Amino acid sequence: LNTKCLIIAAGRGRRLSERGDSKPLIPLLGLPLIQRVILAAESAGLSEFIVVTGYNHKPLEAFLNQLASSGARRITCVYNDEWDKENGISVLKARPLLHGNFILLMADHIFDPSILLHLLEEKVGDDEVILAVDRNVSGNQLVDPNDVTKVLVDDGRIVGIGKTIEDFNAYDTGIFRCSQAIFEGIEQSIREGDSTLSGAVRVLAERGKARAFNIENALWIDIDDDAALRRGEKQLLSTLYKNSDGPVARFLNRPVSTALTRQLVRTPLTPNIISFISFVIAIVAAVFFFLPGYTNLLIGGLLAQLASIVDGCDGEIARLKLQITEFGGWFDAVLDRYADALLLLGMTYHSYYSRPESWVWAVGFLAIIGAFMNSYTADKYDGLMRRRLGPGASYFRLGRDVRIFIILLGAVANLPLVALIIIAVVMNFENVRRVRLLYNYEGN
Amino acid sequence: LNTKCLIIAAGRGRRLSERGDSKPLIPLLGLPLIQRVILAAESAGLSEFIVVTGYNHKPLEAFLNQLASSGARRITCVYNDEWDKENGISVLKARPLLHGNFILLMADHIFDPSILLHLLEEKVGDDEVILAVDRNVSGNQLVDPNDVTKVLVDDGRIVGIGKTIEDFNAYDTGIFRCSQAIFEGIEQSIREGDSTLSGAVRVLAERGKARAFNIENALWIDIDDDAALRRGEKQLLSTLYKNSDGPVARFLNRPVSTALTRQLVRTPLTPNIISFISFVIAIVAAVFFFLPGYTNLLIGGLLAQLASIVDGCDGEIARLKLQITEFGGWFDAVLDRYADALLLLGMTYHSYYSRPESWVWAVGFLAIIGAFMNSYTADKYDGLMRRRLGPGASYFRLGRDVRIFIILLGAVANLPLVALIIIAVVMNFENVRRVRLLYNYEGN
Repeated sequence: LNTKCLIIAAGRGRRLSERGDSKPLIPLLGLPLIQRVILAAESAGLSEFIVVTGYNHKPLEAFLNQLASSGARRITCVYNDEWDKENGISVLKARPLLHGNFILLMADHIFDPSILLHLLEEKVGDDEVILAVDRNVSGNQLVDPNDVTKVLVDDGRIVGIGKTIEDFNAYDTGIFRCSQAIFEGIEQSIREGDSTLSGAVRVLAERGKARAFNIENALWIDIDDDAALRRGEKQLLSTLYKNSDGPVARFLNRPVSTALTRQLVRTPLTPNIISFISFVIAIVAAVFFFLPGYTNLLIGGLLAQLASIVDGCDGEIARLKLQITEFGGWFDAVLDRYADALLLLGMTYHSYYSRPESWVWAVGFLAIIGAFMNSYTADKYDGLMRRRLGPGASYFRLGRDVRIFIILLGAVANLPLVALIIIAVVMNFENVRRVRLLYNYEGN
Repeated sequence: LNTKCLIIAAGRGRRLSERGDSKPLIPLLGLPLIQRVILAAESAGLSEFIVVTGYNHKPLEAFLNQLASSGARRITCVYNDEWDKENGISVLKARPLLHGNFILLMADHIFDPSILLHLLEEKVGDDEVILAVDRNVSGNQLVDPNDVTKVLVDDGRIVGIGKTIEDFNAYDTGIFRCSQAIFEGIEQSIREGDSTLSGAVRVLAERGKARAFNIENALWIDIDDDAALRRGEKQLLSTLYKNSDGPVARFLNRPVSTALTRQLVRTPLTPNIISFISFVIAIVAAVFFFLPGYTNLLIGGLLAQLASIVDGCDGEIARLKLQITEFGGWFDAVLDRYADALLLLGMTYHSYYSRPESWVWAVGFLAIIGAFMNSYTADKYDGLMRRRLGPGASYFRLGRDVRIFIILLGAVANLPLVALIIIAVVMNFENVRRVRLLYNYEGN
């Protein structure tokens, strides 16, 4: 996309000053607010950014220059020496760099990239501005009702806007799709004594040229003070639970892994490194399984469960830091399969101590086949379930979380062979069930 | 797509009458010509067909009614009682059913669906016709130079067309994108004494309104006589070799499987049933491995190789009969993984007869891990190679074909344990190589 993206990052943000002297650089779950906004815009397809800086601009500009050099993005900084005035002034300062239509964002408003993706599909007229609004005015607990800008929408048009209007049915999310008309709107609003962006929208609204874009139920948060920052962190962490999580993942692994992730996002550890750490923990667990005796078996079982928990963190960090890559998902899956195989090999070896008969190995073989094929069929099964039940539904899922938990239980109970038998039987039955199910729905 | 597709199937096709009394119903590799044309058009996105019938139209119409009821397609038949006249008349008979632009195909011209896919991207003016042409006039061995319609193209415009013109640089492929202007062109051509479709193109060409669309090197064949039918079959079979085929697949499995496929396409066996038959052969092979003695080992090895060969036929039949489904590919892959696992389990069990030591089982375990992960990483590896080397290139590929062949060699040489060790070492090394390669290209 060659649509440019203007980001306003000039204000002081006094209410967050305890967290740092440059508001756009204050981290939320390990990522500075401005980087979060830029990465979200990037994942919606934008690559050219103009950032208006102001208060304490030097460290922000240094950070943005570094960010620009580490990716395919272009970032141009514009310094607004009147940063202590209203935000309409900041937009005007960038005017010489903006031709045609552009996206306008606030450095302190984080949002779900899908909002921008859909907003970019809207057509904006040469004399128009489109403001993304949240119509959920009664249920939204993430908004500070005293501080948010309210909007009155009538049949898709904005007919009123301001922090103090009495009659409203939407909130201003700070996400705009602008034509050049916005500049003229600001100038007229200034002449009328109001240099806010809301003033410009009001000017355009009076001409019927300010449209509202409904974000439906997508997430956005204005990070204005410490309470909002904590609400934002909590909200983002809560989005990490997945519908494809099995029962053990949901009730044991996910609560622990999200707590771990909350700490790990503050470190420079990348998702791929976390995947590798989880793999190493699984190898160590397998080594303990190879050693004789209950204590080693128990340690191995606990480490296997730990590996399974840590294995949730890579994807969580990738999602929180907007670092999802196709390779990352694949790399994690490949390491998981090797980890599964080594754990089951270790368990089989341990079982063979107490029952040195060759059929024990055959059971191990069947367990490993079942485990592999369970992962092999998972994507297709999840896809079918999503199509049948809708994207939000939970469904029966017997997967890796359950498998590793059975290994843990087998180790704790000192019954490794029983655990292997259960895995071999349950996993292979589940695979046959999935193939039959998919055959009935998709084959012929 | 709501573009309609007109197919001319009225002529007698006397030169193919030994094969059947309805030319459109003569099978080419198990599929009647008309069905091949309809399925190819469907895979390019068309779903509404109008077929002009003529000579011996009853059986053809019965077949088309049945075909329509077995899919989401709509087929309307129009009977041309003047079927013994030139083909322009047939087009005119369908006029009342065609409004706006449409695609025009010949029932006896088979073609690569990609031609239609690209032709549908072209815009056709209200007074225009676009004819897909083959510019490869010197190298095309599939064309009968005495019978093909020649075209002279100048700067994308058709300036001459006919079977006997001396000066030409393209062949008429019988694939058209028409506006309503074609009907008026036919009428004028008839007034000038020529009721062929070529006549209509010439009329439009004189006004500068007949455009040529270059099919590049895509495949098309006019099935006019027995020789053309045999050429067509040979040509389609030759497209079954894949760039992702490993060395054993290329030089052993594929020659045998295509010969088998050539027979199997004439049967009602579906690709999914062939996948299942290959799976059953592999299970029988594994059972022989479980039995003691060299003879059983040898039989098992030969059956395993047979299963690997038959496993090529499912995809080949699906491609030849235009029956490729996402489910079919997945179902085949799942059965292959179970087959691999059972074969390696059998081989391990057999090895344990001669060396009843537990490390033999560990070798089998590592072989099975290597085999599974080899398949798990194959798609991603193939994708990377295609992107790096282009779609036509061959590259180093150590996959299932090689693995099964090592099993065969191990069985023939009565060295099952050695085969297992080689599979365990080679496959796992190959997997590590692939992960490292992909990490270097895609991770960070």
